[in-house]
Amino acid sequence: MTSYFQAIDPVRFRGPGSDDPLSYRHYDKDRVVLGKRMEDHLRFAVCYWHSFCWTGLDPFGGQTFERPWFQGGSPMELAAVKADAAFELFSKLGVPYYTFHDRDVAPEGTTPRESRDNFLRMVDVLAAHQQRSGVKLLWGTANLFSHRRYMAGAATNPDPAVFAQAAIQVRDALEATKRLGGENYVLWGGREGYETLLNTRVGQELDQMGRFLSMVVEHKHKIGFEGAILIEPKPREPSKHQYDFDVATVYGFLVRYGLEKEVKVNIEANHATLSGHSFEHEIAMASALGILGSIDMNRGDPQLGWDTDQFPNNLPETALALYHILQAGGLGSGGLNFDAKVRRQSLDAEDLFHGHVGAMDLCARALLLAEKLVQDGRLAQAVDARYAGWHSAEAQEVLNGRVTLAELADRALTANADTAPVSGRQEALENLFNRLCEG
Amino acid sequence: MTSYFQAIDPVRFRGPGSDDPLSYRHYDKDRVVLGKRMEDHLRFAVCYWHSFCWTGLDPFGGQTFERPWFQGGSPMELAAVKADAAFELFSKLGVPYYTFHDRDVAPEGTTPRESRDNFLRMVDVLAAHQQRSGVKLLWGTANLFSHRRYMAGAATNPDPAVFAQAAIQVRDALEATKRLGGENYVLWGGREGYETLLNTRVGQELDQMGRFLSMVVEHKHKIGFEGAILIEPKPREPSKHQYDFDVATVYGFLVRYGLEKEVKVNIEANHATLSGHSFEHEIAMASALGILGSIDMNRGDPQLGWDTDQFPNNLPETALALYHILQAGGLGSGGLNFDAKVRRQSLDAEDLFHGHVGAMDLCARALLLAEKLVQDGRLAQAVDARYAGWHSAEAQEVLNGRVTLAELADRALTANADTAPVSGRQEALENLFNRLCEG
Amino acid sequence: MTSYFQAIDPVRFRGPGSDDPLSYRHYDKDRVVLGKRMEDHLRFAVCYWHSFCWTGLDPFGGQTFERPWFQGGSPMELAAVKADAAFELFSKLGVPYYTFHDRDVAPEGTTPRESRDNFLRMVDVLAAHQQRSGVKLLWGTANLFSHRRYMAGAATNPDPAVFAQAAIQVRDALEATKRLGGENYVLWGGREGYETLLNTRVGQELDQMGRFLSMVVEHKHKIGFEGAILIEPKPREPSKHQYDFDVATVYGFLVRYGLEKEVKVNIEANHATLSGHSFEHEIAMASALGILGSIDMNRGDPQLGWDTDQFPNNLPETALALYHILQAGGLGSGGLNFDAKVRRQSLDAEDLFHGHVGAMDLCARALLLAEKLVQDGRLAQAVDARYAGWHSAEAQEVLNGRVTLAELADRALTANADTAPVSGRQEALENLFNRLCEG
Amino acid sequence: MTSYFQAIDPVRFRGPGSDDPLSYRHYDKDRVVLGKRMEDHLRFAVCYWHSFCWTGLDPFGGQTFERPWFQGGSPMELAAVKADAAFELFSKLGVPYYTFHDRDVAPEGTTPRESRDNFLRMVDVLAAHQQRSGVKLLWGTANLFSHRRYMAGAATNPDPAVFAQAAIQVRDALEATKRLGGENYVLWGGREGYETLLNTRVGQELDQMGRFLSMVVEHKHKIGFEGAILIEPKPREPSKHQYDFDVATVYGFLVRYGLEKEVKVNIEANHATLSGHSFEHEIAMASALGILGSIDMNRGDPQLGWDTDQFPNNLPETALALYHILQAGGLGSGGLNFDAKVRRQSLDAEDLFHGHVGAMDLCARALLLAEKLVQDGRLAQAVDARYAGWHSAEAQEVLNGRVTLAELADRALTANADTAPVSGRQEALENLFNRLCEG
Repeated sequence: MTSYFQAIDPVRFRGPGSDDPLSYRHYDKDRVVLGKRMEDHLRFAVCYWHSFCWTGLDPFGGQTFERPWFQGGSPMELAAVKADAAFELFSKLGVPYYTFHDRDVAPEGTTPRESRDNFLRMVDVLAAHQQRSGVKLLWGTANLFSHRRYMAGAATNPDPAVFAQAAIQVRDALEATKRLGGENYVLWGGREGYETLLNTRVGQELDQMGRFLSMVVEHKHKIGFEGAILIEPKPREPSKHQYDFDVATVYGFLVRYGLEKEVKVNIEANHATLSGHSFEHEIAMASALGILGSIDMNRGDPQLGWDTDQFPNNLPETALALYHILQAGGLGSGGLNFDAKVRRQSLDAEDLFHGHVGAMDLCARALLLAEKLVQDGRLAQAVDARYAGWHSAEAQEVLNGRVTLAELADRALTANADTAPVSGRQEALENLFNRLCEG
Repeated sequence: MTSYFQAIDPVRFRGPGSDDPLSYRHYDKDRVVLGKRMEDHLRFAVCYWHSFCWTGLDPFGGQTFERPWFQGGSPMELAAVKADAAFELFSKLGVPYYTFHDRDVAPEGTTPRESRDNFLRMVDVLAAHQQRSGVKLLWGTANLFSHRRYMAGAATNPDPAVFAQAAIQVRDALEATKRLGGENYVLWGGREGYETLLNTRVGQELDQMGRFLSMVVEHKHKIGFEGAILIEPKPREPSKHQYDFDVATVYGFLVRYGLEKEVKVNIEANHATLSGHSFEHEIAMASALGILGSIDMNRGDPQLGWDTDQFPNNLPETALALYHILQAGGLGSGGLNFDAKVRRQSLDAEDLFHGHVGAMDLCARALLLAEKLVQDGRLAQAVDARYAGWHSAEAQEVLNGRVTLAELADRALTANADTAPVSGRQEALENLFNRLCEG
Repeated sequence: MTSYFQAIDPVRFRGPGSDDPLSYRHYDKDRVVLGKRMEDHLRFAVCYWHSFCWTGLDPFGGQTFERPWFQGGSPMELAAVKADAAFELFSKLGVPYYTFHDRDVAPEGTTPRESRDNFLRMVDVLAAHQQRSGVKLLWGTANLFSHRRYMAGAATNPDPAVFAQAAIQVRDALEATKRLGGENYVLWGGREGYETLLNTRVGQELDQMGRFLSMVVEHKHKIGFEGAILIEPKPREPSKHQYDFDVATVYGFLVRYGLEKEVKVNIEANHATLSGHSFEHEIAMASALGILGSIDMNRGDPQLGWDTDQFPNNLPETALALYHILQAGGLGSGGLNFDAKVRRQSLDAEDLFHGHVGAMDLCARALLLAEKLVQDGRLAQAVDARYAGWHSAEAQEVLNGRVTLAELADRALTANADTAPVSGRQEALENLFNRLCEG
Repeated sequence: MTSYFQAIDPVRFRGPGSDDPLSYRHYDKDRVVLGKRMEDHLRFAVCYWHSFCWTGLDPFGGQTFERPWFQGGSPMELAAVKADAAFELFSKLGVPYYTFHDRDVAPEGTTPRESRDNFLRMVDVLAAHQQRSGVKLLWGTANLFSHRRYMAGAATNPDPAVFAQAAIQVRDALEATKRLGGENYVLWGGREGYETLLNTRVGQELDQMGRFLSMVVEHKHKIGFEGAILIEPKPREPSKHQYDFDVATVYGFLVRYGLEKEVKVNIEANHATLSGHSFEHEIAMASALGILGSIDMNRGDPQLGWDTDQFPNNLPETALALYHILQAGGLGSGGLNFDAKVRRQSLDAEDLFHGHVGAMDLCARALLLAEKLVQDGRLAQAVDARYAGWHSAEAQEVLNGRVTLAELADRALTANADTAPVSGRQEALENLFNRLCEG
């Protein structure tokens, strides 16, 4: 097989002392962390689209990358070359998982059937690659946003014929995900939203989206796919408004359509911050609501109002996110997917490795810090202590609904005493966090 | 009775030709619009707090306003003076409604009982003013955010004793609202959120908040209050994160605690934009979810990241918001409350009038434009036409759950034809809107 | 000549009563406003790139528009077809001006010389179109941001060879602008900034940019081009940071390199709001600093963090912007360019007309309102009155530098009296503005 | 002397192994870093206002802190108590510097003279404290924004009498700063801006502000104050727009009024991010423009649109900022001031210590990382290498203005070759930064 990254050796763990930029200093996949192998905690996945399909194009400029799989053959030939290159990268990085959209791996045909045939043929190719390399599929998904037919939405399109086209793609992508042993299936609704309310009926579109998702869940059960169905929230971009705005919004949508036991969320750091939340907020909220599924571990830029999809590079922020994931009991069948792209000026094949190696190593180191936070226990104890008052029998009665508003008010009026506020200790806790992150 | 606005005559409708800045040019309360008096559509309310309690203070500066009710007597004497002045303003403006927090109208005492006594005494004063003036109460609410006891939340406080203090205030404010004929009761949870996740247990706090709201709803039924219970969403400020982030989040919260039939939302324009939505988005979303209750008609500044609570002054934006309210079938027991304040440099008593008169007249004119949009019908027809495909029997079967994903996909594959995208016509619709807003 | 907009008749002024969406209701080009023809105030220009080069592509989706000039010929043949279509649109709209980048009108070749030849040949074609149609060139510019060679900047590129390539393009575009009778020449530095400070030397890049601009100014004088050189500020996008952040930043840059008498700014509404300013702020600031040049009359979306380049559609906001332009004495050789694009779902050729006709008519109506504001005079008088204190001889002495800090402090201490704050009257002025905008 | 922090021992360096939250683990003031003592690099200052004057108040709530110096005496008695407490904190922290506004240390009187007398008397008290404790003054400043007289600006007020009141305060604060050995004098213009352009004349206000600053500079020279005059940029809040928007804007203002050699900037991290820049951007920009003066080392919250003034707590971000300061050659007479406040729920006196100790230690550790980045040299080398092309004689000729646009264009056309883009290597450099920040 031709090598597309000939100059790059497989990336290995060499320990914290290594100064080789293409080695792991912290990602020692078999190291046991809180009773589980590091690899089994982090469940890293590399995405197909940013590293193999994106050309470097942005709204103000064209292609900057020159990849062997961008030209020089028929679309299906190039798809095969791209798959070779992708699995070479996955293997050399030593990641356990990858993720893809249907249209990443196989070209759109001139008819629905041709598109489908292209896809099914490439699924065979992917299966062979998986078999050979041992790389597994974290999740599959269908691209329902790039083609002009979806410009006004897929499930939420005003034209039911588009809904039907989406059904083809999602049925096939879900079945392919099952066939490839995928552990989850993701839906990201980048066009499930609107550009202007002047031409939009919000209630109708929500009902369409609820129906579509119900059909997907039914199909999952019918075919015996055991992975999780995940929705990926994002507030806007490309649409002015997207219905899956954030975790809390998706939760409301799921309960509205009776799907809150069936569907979880795939949280992306960059989408979290675009929606006005911290990344850890979205994790904690999903955990509280019982819908934490998986993570897209790519950050935005705090000064930019769009998705930059950058590799994570801030250690304490990443440690905090992983601490919240550990507190939530981990990700189950989910994992950490790098829905991240190298910058458009990062032209070299080597840059693809720098992006992933740096990010994986950062996450590994962050996991070790999160382990330390858990083992130390003081952060969790501080939270426990703060709410301790609610453990009293009296307070539990209130929480359990056995006290009325009037009874509680009367009790408090009888006591006729004000409360004694106590310090929230934010600075002390932030310092404790930082102390534990040292060393 | 002493007059505090002696120089100002009652504001009257004088028609569009009037150049008197303290007259109404469009707010002709008895004019019939779509079969209902203008006053009954708009149901204007003036809020007590901004115009009578706020001193002009901001985070970087102290008091700028000098009002007769700010000094020169005991707290209860000043509360009486303030009430006189407030009802003089309400009456001179000719608004049908006002709104208040418990602590706006009566001073905090040194004990819970004294605070309560102060409040109950002032409720008598308000009742007399209402009786005399004919001004009614749109909604009451309790201030659970200004006192230091609530610094870490009221219902969501880690200390159950604070939850109990909140119960006193809300029980009394709800009962006072009933007594004063209030048509709604509002909860705004400015401190129901967090400053840092390091000291916060999100799931616990949501459960506390759910319990508290359930207790309020039960009490409402117990005392026979027939008004609506409303939650006012806001994403942040004063807290870093507030649980009632936006309409969609509140909806999910209500369903989680089984309250979606009991509670609606009070949407504020400024809070909408702070949460990353347009005002009309929040109205349309609440309408689609069946929880549209009432409106706070005060805007923010598009360049500022905090609540500026300015009087509305953009005509087409206001017309669009009112059009969406009309499309939603109106506000029922809700109304348009000006949770708005004059700027801190607007020192003169007259400025209080300029703020309200300009805003009321703008809303009146916007209502007339919204009426025209409804009567013209072309905007609505364009939306109907766009979704017409979903009226077919086949599409209805899909929406009603009688077609599986696989059946739909197979049908589309059999047809094997792509869809034909049609223009979204955004520019044409925006122009139509603007044309109809003329003249 | 083939018509590309056969179904569309030339757009004519039909008066406010017209309900034909493709007529002007307010844009009556010969109507005299404050002593000047409406056309001579507004000096509308249509841009070449958005309407004729953009395919509907966005970061998450591909081409949506299908235009006759997108395929079916060699690049130069298609460039000719595109020019035919562009001038047909300009003519049918009846706009006096257009604007272009070199690469909009002629395809990039395989070598610098071929690119240049293509461009020079197309300049001849444009000249013929101008001659035939009477449409004039408001400004030309060079595209120094789309090609990968400019990914790290043009003038600010770390590689001086790229600076030299930019010199070719700008020299030729400037000379072409002169040849075509262009009234201004614009530089927009979308890549003159950085992605990360880790690989950037800010001072060096500013010096490169200063040198480049000086060379452009020298060349302008050498060839006798009499139009204005304009910089178009934008804070970010595509770059993380762009050096021409906003008007005040550009002013500082110009003074640093001795160019503040030579170069003005082209202010875009959307760029203004992205930089955290209102549109009218940027106009007022440029006027105060003496560098107001021209305007890009396209707005953003207040909830979106990127350039949406929408046609203006808010009447009072547009009236306010035009009022500030009138207050500044007008735009001189500048004009109102629509750097605006129809939405990606606005597929039909007709949509290109809706976008422009609606925007032009809105600006015309806004100009009539701005005229009224000027003629009424009360807004300006209020400002004059507010600063009247500074007209006293004593105050003028202070302003003119004839009083020291100590003298002034001593005088005030001698008087030993505090000042008497007066109301800023913001609400009253906003209401006055709205009253004058009626009818 | 009464102790207000009796329970707190002086904070000492105990090394990285210490788990005492009120010890320094990294701030070892005499440790030599790049040839200079750590204390002399960091030049820490504690501000008077947040820790001793702020009551915990925010726009939605009242006082939360209960400090001995808030009540129980006359204003001047309380000012003395406050000074005792402040110097106890400064001393126990072991910081070399503090900073103050005139109104922080002495109460406003009922007349200008009484205010002045209060201030001068308290300056004596401060002098005695400095003498006794060895704590020095990093900078003084005058509060020209809290009193209602300044609601419409100080230097930019429409009323020249307010300008004169500001002259009293600044003259006295500058002279007091000199007397107290202050090393800089700061001006922050929180009200030097506007709320609405409808009542504002921007050019007039800029001229007033330029004049005022010139008078301050002249007075500085007259009295022989040798410290630096610093402007602190902030884009908005409390005003809608502040003229000192960011570093680049201040630079333009300074050159406009001929003050760029006389005045530098005091950059605050939180103000940087509010203006749409990263903190390190503002440092790098000030360095490039030659106006880097001093630093306010307090951060904002990336999701909040207002000044939160939090203690820094992110290590890699702080290391990056300090690396840029080292690259700029250090701060000269400037320092790192904590214009930071503990959260409103951080009620305990101890929290004041947690905030400062954590922040100082973070900065110390960040300095050690920045030292490592400098010593390693690879980051700087990468930048050097990227711009190496500009060192050629030919490129220097271009930069030095000896080549015209036409000559350069012709040369490039003669060569007729495109350039060869090279990778920007952002991911590799980010990884290198992170590797160097380890251990």
